[in-house]
Amino acid sequence: MSALSEKTGENLTAVIDSKPLVHNITNYVVMNSTANTLLAMGASPVMAHAVEEVEEMVSLAGSLVLNIGTLSEDWITAMFKAGKKAEEMKIPIVFDPVGSGATSLRTDTARKIISEIDLQVVRGNASEILSLVDSDSRTRGVDSIDSAEDAAGTAMTIARQYSTVIAVTGPVDIVTDGSRIVKVFNGDPLMNYVTGMGCAATAVIGAFLAVDDDPLSAAATALAFFGLAGEKAAEKTSVPGSFMVELLNALYSITAEACRIECRFADGD
Amino acid sequence: MSALSEKTGENLTAVIDSKPLVHNITNYVVMNSTANTLLAMGASPVMAHAVEEVEEMVSLAGSLVLNIGTLSEDWITAMFKAGKKAEEMKIPIVFDPVGSGATSLRTDTARKIISEIDLQVVRGNASEILSLVDSDSRTRGVDSIDSAEDAAGTAMTIARQYSTVIAVTGPVDIVTDGSRIVKVFNGDPLMNYVTGMGCAATAVIGAFLAVDDDPLSAAATALAFFGLAGEKAAEKTSVPGSFMVELLNALYSITAEACRIECRFADGD
Amino acid sequence: MSALSEKTGENLTAVIDSKPLVHNITNYVVMNSTANTLLAMGASPVMAHAVEEVEEMVSLAGSLVLNIGTLSEDWITAMFKAGKKAEEMKIPIVFDPVGSGATSLRTDTARKIISEIDLQVVRGNASEILSLVDSDSRTRGVDSIDSAEDAAGTAMTIARQYSTVIAVTGPVDIVTDGSRIVKVFNGDPLMNYVTGMGCAATAVIGAFLAVDDDPLSAAATALAFFGLAGEKAAEKTSVPGSFMVELLNALYSITAEACRIECRFADGD
Repeated sequence: MSALSEKTGENLTAVIDSKPLVHNITNYVVMNSTANTLLAMGASPVMAHAVEEVEEMVSLAGSLVLNIGTLSEDWITAMFKAGKKAEEMKIPIVFDPVGSGATSLRTDTARKIISEIDLQVVRGNASEILSLVDSDSRTRGVDSIDSAEDAAGTAMTIARQYSTVIAVTGPVDIVTDGSRIVKVFNGDPLMNYVTGMGCAATAVIGAFLAVDDDPLSAAATALAFFGLAGEKAAEKTSVPGSFMVELLNALYSITAEACRIECRFADGD
Repeated sequence: MSALSEKTGENLTAVIDSKPLVHNITNYVVMNSTANTLLAMGASPVMAHAVEEVEEMVSLAGSLVLNIGTLSEDWITAMFKAGKKAEEMKIPIVFDPVGSGATSLRTDTARKIISEIDLQVVRGNASEILSLVDSDSRTRGVDSIDSAEDAAGTAMTIARQYSTVIAVTGPVDIVTDGSRIVKVFNGDPLMNYVTGMGCAATAVIGAFLAVDDDPLSAAATALAFFGLAGEKAAEKTSVPGSFMVELLNALYSITAEACRIECRFADGD
Repeated sequence: MSALSEKTGENLTAVIDSKPLVHNITNYVVMNSTANTLLAMGASPVMAHAVEEVEEMVSLAGSLVLNIGTLSEDWITAMFKAGKKAEEMKIPIVFDPVGSGATSLRTDTARKIISEIDLQVVRGNASEILSLVDSDSRTRGVDSIDSAEDAAGTAMTIARQYSTVIAVTGPVDIVTDGSRIVKVFNGDPLMNYVTGMGCAATAVIGAFLAVDDDPLSAAATALAFFGLAGEKAAEKTSVPGSFMVELLNALYSITAEACRIECRFADGD
C-alpha cells in the first residue's frame, strides 16, 4: 500500500464529504455521462458555457474542467473567460485537449489554452499530448496512436515548460510534473468501447483537484480511482452497454478502503 | 385512494392512448435522457431550438417544455418565440428554471420568462423557486439548499402573482396554484445521484399537461407518477447506473392501476 | 443464406478489422448514443461541427454522417462545407433528414442537401422521405405516419432523380437505388421506445459505407445488422431502459457468422 493508494482513499472521502461543485465547459457528446460520473462519485457537477455566465459560475466552483471536444468559437471565448477567472481566484483547472492534432482549430486552441491559462493538470492520450508541442504528431480522430509510456519524455518537457502536470492515459497512465513521474496501472480495455471515458477521467481529476492541493497527486489518484471503477465494472460484465452502467455503479460503490488496497502506482523520478 | 391517485392513472392512460407530441427546448445535458423518459412513458418527444423553426414546431405540439440549463442568448430568443406562440395557441407550457439563482444570466432569464410568458407550471428545487423573487436566495449550482416545504409560502405568493402553478420538488414535493397546496410523497433518494432527474420530472409534467386541463392536477400527478417510477427502480437496484436504466423500465411498465394504488398525496388549502 | 446476408458478415468483419473513422455532424440528442453505437460495433466515431474544422476532419474520415435533428444555421453551413469536401475527396456520405416535413427549416434544408450534395445514402422514416418531394406530406414530429412499403414508389423516384440510395425504415425496411429494391426484415418494436434509434441506424450505414463500395449493399446490410442487434436485445429484455443497454451489448457481440445466418432480406427489381 503506497502513499498514493492511501491518498486516493483520502481524496475520495473528501469528495464525498464536501461534494465540491465542479464546473465543466465540455463537449456535447459527454455532458450527460460526465455529469453522471461526477454525481455517482459524490461530487456536484454543473455544465455552463455561456460567455455571459461562466465567470460567475466558476466563482462558485471548487474546480474547472475545460474540454475542447465539439469545439466552436463561442466556446473558446467562454473557456478563456472562465479560465482567466479561475486563475485569478486560485480555482484549480484541468484541461482535456480532445482531438488536438486532428484539426488546426483543435491544435491551435489547445496550444493557446496551455500557453495562456495557468492550468494545474492537462489530461490526454499520447497523440493529443504530443500534438501540444510537435506539429508532426497527428491524432487519428480522438483515438491515440502512441502508448502513454512512449510520450513520457515529451510529457515531462511540456510539464516543465508550462509548469503544469501532464497526465497521459493509455493501458498504463503516465502522470508527471516535469520532475516526478507516476505510473498508474488501474483500468480495463473495455473502456475503449464506451464514449467519453477519457473525458470522464478528466472530470474525476477535476473533482480530486477540488480537495487535493497537489495536482500531481490529484491527477494520479483520480486516474487510479477511475481505472479501478473500470476494473470493478469488468468484473461484472464483458460487454460495453452493461459496462457503462456498471462503471457508474462502481464509482458510487467503491470505498476509500478499496482504493487503499487496489489502486496500483509506481513512483519514479 | 384519493381523487389525485385516480387522476394519475387517468393521465397516464391518456398519454399512452394519445401519444402527445411534447416540444422541448431544453439543455444539452439532459436532451437524451429527457427524450428517453418521454418515450418510455408513451409520449412523443421532439427537441428543436432554432429560432427559424420553434414557432412552427410548437404549433404541432400538445405542450411545450422550456428549460434554461446550459443557456445561451440564441436559446433565450427561441424560448420567447416558442413561448409566445404556445400562449397564442393555448398550448400549455411548463418551465424549469435550472440553476436560477446561481448566475445573473439564469436568474434574470428565469424572471423574464415567468413575468412575460403565460406559464401553466413552473417546476424547480426550493432554491431555484426562491430565486424567482428573492435576490438574496442563491443556489449552489443546480442543487437545492432548502427543503420544498420551507419554500411553500413563497411558492404560493409566486403562484398568485404570476397566475401559474408552482411545483417545488424535494424529498416531499409541494405543488400550489396560490390557493390550494398538494404534497406529493413519491420518490427515492437515489434520484439525487443521476443527472437530469429534475428536468425529466418537468418533461413528464409537460406530457401530463397535454392531456389534463388542470395544471395543478397535471403537475401533482406527473410528480407522483415520476416519483413512483423512482421507487420501482429502487426496488430493483441500489446503485445509480442501474437505477437510471430501471427508472426508464419503470416509466414504461407502471400501470394506471399501480398509480391509483401507490401514488401518495396530501391535499391542503 | 442470401448474398446480402453473406455481405453483412463481411462488412461487419471489415469494420472490426479497419476501425474506420466515421465523422458525424449530428444532433445533440443522439451524439452520445451514436458514438456508443459506433464504438460498440468496432468503428471509430468523431463528432465535429465547427465550420473552421469540418473540412479538415472529414478529410481524415472513411465516411461522413449528416443529420439535421436539432438543426441551426451554423450547422447547416458546416454540413455543406463537410459535404462538399467529402464529395471532392470521394468520401461516402449518408444523410438523415430527421423531422423533415415537420418544419420549413428542416424540409428546405433536407431538400437543399439532397439536391446540392452528392449523397450515397439517405435514410429516414416514410414521412421524412416523402417530405423530400411532396410538400403535402407532413411528419408528426420525428415519428413516421406511413409504412416504409407505402413509400417505396416515391423512394424509387427520389433515388433515380438524385442518383442516391434511399433507405426507408419501418417495421420492414425498404432500400432502393431507383432500379433495385431490397427489403430488410430484421428489427424489433421496442426500438420505438428508445430515442435515437433511427439516427444510430444511419450511423451504422456510415460505418458500412466506409468498407463497402456499393451503397445499396452497405445500406441494406447495415440496417439488417442493426435490426438483428435489436432482436438480440429483445431476447434479453422487454423494457426500454434495459433494451438500450442490451442493444449496445449486441452490437459488440454479434459475429459475422450470426449475420450470415440471421439477417433476413428479400431482393426485388
